[in-house]
Amino acid sequence: MKNLLVASTSTVHGQSYLEYLKEPLNDLFSNTEEVLFIPYARPGGISHDEYTAKANEAFQSIGKNLRGIHTFDDPSAAICYARGIFTGGGNTFVLVKALHKLQLMEPLREAIFNGIPYLGTSAGSNICGITMQTTNDMPIVYPPSFKTLGAIPFNINPHYLDPEPESTHMGETRETRIKEYHTQNNIPVVGLREGSWLEVKGDNILLKGSLSARIFLKDKDPYEIESGTVIDSL
Amino acid sequence: MKNLLVASTSTVHGQSYLEYLKEPLNDLFSNTEEVLFIPYARPGGISHDEYTAKANEAFQSIGKNLRGIHTFDDPSAAICYARGIFTGGGNTFVLVKALHKLQLMEPLREAIFNGIPYLGTSAGSNICGITMQTTNDMPIVYPPSFKTLGAIPFNINPHYLDPEPESTHMGETRETRIKEYHTQNNIPVVGLREGSWLEVKGDNILLKGSLSARIFLKDKDPYEIESGTVIDSL
Repeated sequence: MKNLLVASTSTVHGQSYLEYLKEPLNDLFSNTEEVLFIPYARPGGISHDEYTAKANEAFQSIGKNLRGIHTFDDPSAAICYARGIFTGGGNTFVLVKALHKLQLMEPLREAIFNGIPYLGTSAGSNICGITMQTTNDMPIVYPPSFKTLGAIPFNINPHYLDPEPESTHMGETRETRIKEYHTQNNIPVVGLREGSWLEVKGDNILLKGSLSARIFLKDKDPYEIESGTVIDSL
Repeated sequence: MKNLLVASTSTVHGQSYLEYLKEPLNDLFSNTEEVLFIPYARPGGISHDEYTAKANEAFQSIGKNLRGIHTFDDPSAAICYARGIFTGGGNTFVLVKALHKLQLMEPLREAIFNGIPYLGTSAGSNICGITMQTTNDMPIVYPPSFKTLGAIPFNINPHYLDPEPESTHMGETRETRIKEYHTQNNIPVVGLREGSWLEVKGDNILLKGSLSARIFLKDKDPYEIESGTVIDSL
């Protein structure tokens, strides 16, 4: 049975890395002391080692060890043997390119469908969707495909931002961008605000955190769902 | 001799479409009455016809006719025979996919290098760079390549936005994104604020409009250049 925590962000304003998720992470990873870390998204281009050290610090505070997938000779086997997996945020294009290049998308999908507890934040949540095409990131590398894990039956827009009515900037709002996505695609999109996450247990998907989320369906008006809502059919 | 106007945006806040560019457009297209319009970026997914009609309205006010490239049987020949070309904004991924698919990137590059006056706004400016990889757009379609025209020897970040010091949002600032781009790439990036444009005459590239622009070079601190500055070596 799938067991995922799909979070909009690793960090909410004014708190430390993963601090707001400590309790649910304790639950998610209750059956393992070591969690496999996938650092490929490299926020700000930091090294895999640096990123793993940063994430490990947060995991130490809940009594878990984190080990970077880049330290294994066979990353595919590392996924296969993992009892828990965390994919951190950063640049989704960089992450997806690495996962395709190293042929890890399929093993990762299998692990998730086999019930290995999985945490994703930001880019690591984006890849839980069917494609990465509702990322906010810059296309700084060219991945061989935009297809991702399909662990949930829709796409995620992490760090979802509401339009600012006072803004004089002419660039598109997030809502405009997602509507534009739906001129070319049919996949539903869940706009997850910072501080929100999805708790996925099998096919049951629950919105958690204090905020509502925004649902975008092709040719429909977007609408809000409250925290605590089960997202079963979109 | 190349003759381009590479603008951050088609529209500045509080004005109509292309209004702030009327005078330079009059100069740019002084030798032709008909301008070829490339509507492929389809902002908000509007049709090629709708987009052409909107852009044509602005061109009528400076006494020019705009004709959409999609109305020609042979779009490549249309570029070849054009006396002026305008590529409008919208989604850069959609635009670049269309240009590659229709094999128009090379004819367009040739026209520009042969001195055909060219106007780009937003996505239409992005493609003047070496790659589209500093676009702000969502990857709503998968182009066969991120390579673009290379009409200027750097990349453009249109609609450049300064960081908001008061923001509590944890998503990356534009500056952070462009720095992240430089962890993977060497190409210089010019952040063009709304209301700024580049006037390209041969190899002479001049920053115009009232605002400064922000220059990003790999492994260097970003810096500002004032309007009126010649960007000759980056």
